[in-house]
Amino acid sequence: MMDGSFPAPAPAREAQSREAFEARLRAIGAARYHDRHPFHHRLHGGECSPDEVRAWVVNRWWYQSRIPMKDAAFMSRVEDPALRREWRSRIENHDGSDGAPGGIARWLKLAEAVGLDPDYVASGRGVLPATRFAVDAYVRFVRDMPLLDAVASSLTEMFAPKIHADRIEGLLRHYAFADETSLSYFRTRLVEAPRDVAFGLAWVLDHADTAEKQDAAAAALTFKTDVLWAQLDALWHGYVEGHAPPGAWRPGEGLLAARS
Amino acid sequence: MMDGSFPAPAPAREAQSREAFEARLRAIGAARYHDRHPFHHRLHGGECSPDEVRAWVVNRWWYQSRIPMKDAAFMSRVEDPALRREWRSRIENHDGSDGAPGGIARWLKLAEAVGLDPDYVASGRGVLPATRFAVDAYVRFVRDMPLLDAVASSLTEMFAPKIHADRIEGLLRHYAFADETSLSYFRTRLVEAPRDVAFGLAWVLDHADTAEKQDAAAAALTFKTDVLWAQLDALWHGYVEGHAPPGAWRPGEGLLAARS
Repeated sequence: MMDGSFPAPAPAREAQSREAFEARLRAIGAARYHDRHPFHHRLHGGECSPDEVRAWVVNRWWYQSRIPMKDAAFMSRVEDPALRREWRSRIENHDGSDGAPGGIARWLKLAEAVGLDPDYVASGRGVLPATRFAVDAYVRFVRDMPLLDAVASSLTEMFAPKIHADRIEGLLRHYAFADETSLSYFRTRLVEAPRDVAFGLAWVLDHADTAEKQDAAAAALTFKTDVLWAQLDALWHGYVEGHAPPGAWRPGEGLLAARS
Repeated sequence: MMDGSFPAPAPAREAQSREAFEARLRAIGAARYHDRHPFHHRLHGGECSPDEVRAWVVNRWWYQSRIPMKDAAFMSRVEDPALRREWRSRIENHDGSDGAPGGIARWLKLAEAVGLDPDYVASGRGVLPATRFAVDAYVRFVRDMPLLDAVASSLTEMFAPKIHADRIEGLLRHYAFADETSLSYFRTRLVEAPRDVAFGLAWVLDHADTAEKQDAAAAALTFKTDVLWAQLDALWHGYVEGHAPPGAWRPGEGLLAARS
């Protein structure tokens, strides 16, 4: 541009093929999904202390409890009844139906199994502020961003069955609290997540029909991996390194034994 | 309640006196403001490596750059022209006026002084996701919550002059990059923050006229201390402990020397 001319306009980019774009999404998971985080290696390898496991259960509760709110925020913006019908099973899976427990009740079974008062966990007291900030950013992303980005951000579920299978195996092998009741959340997700993701992935591949939309969908999935990773970073800093911030759960708090 | 009777209704709580309520707000700062965080002791004591200082400058940029957006979100909800007039100096302080630089430009002077390309810093690339989540939670809090809570959340400025004075003294003593130009952001805030806080504190003391409103204002200030603390936790985990997450700034990135 030293000669004063304008740069040539960039050539219009073509959208990637469906296969190439799916591979791009899967590569984001391979590089950034939280199965790569040291906390999960520690947890599944049996190296977590009981209090580290409790800190994980207390904090991950915030994520669990916000997922159906996230899905309701999504449905509140969907005009197509068919898409809403597809989506509502996600809320049912978490909240239960016809008296049958859902994922949230199953998470509280896990809380009890590790010695925590489920009412304490359900209150959200003691959750790390960093966990709230990350999870709430996800809920708001789904509420505020284009529907394509919102659906794409759910596609971390593509990578979940493997981590859930590893978790069931690792927890059963290493921890006395682990049994079919306490781990029923993960066992159930092994069945539910692939159904959700088959629909969500096809929807994203169908609707991301320009290079710009593919970029936006990839960015949304990347954002979601950040949301998951940041939760484990905060957990590590707070409870493995021992720097829990003011007001956060401390070992000894919220135990079943202390229930009045 | 074993006898089947209902508990007596709790007596209506009285609001604290103006003095007692102000003391309660100040006690939140004494217990939770981020001047107590180990990262600031490390920074002001001259123990931070040049890359730790750069990581702080890169990440704190996100906070600086979002403050005037936060203040605009607040003003967008204020019906009273007098309150808007009071508030708008905050935006002017950060964005500058009549060609004079504001706090954001001064922060980029600091970025240059520590060897970072100010365009890189201003792009927000490399900011820790945890920093974004925390700061964005603050912007949204001010956008979504009652005006009293929004003003109360700004009152961490009550505690800022001391940390800025400590910072100027500590940085000048320990780091070659520190001089009146690079530290002009903090020097200016020593003058601006007390003006803002005198107004904000009086407004909160005037408007928090019930026990419930006082609780809400105290909770808002507590929330804001969480926002500040979480940023330093993430910085410590990422750059003191060396666990920066995928996609975050790495030493060597965004340097002035690498500017094209």
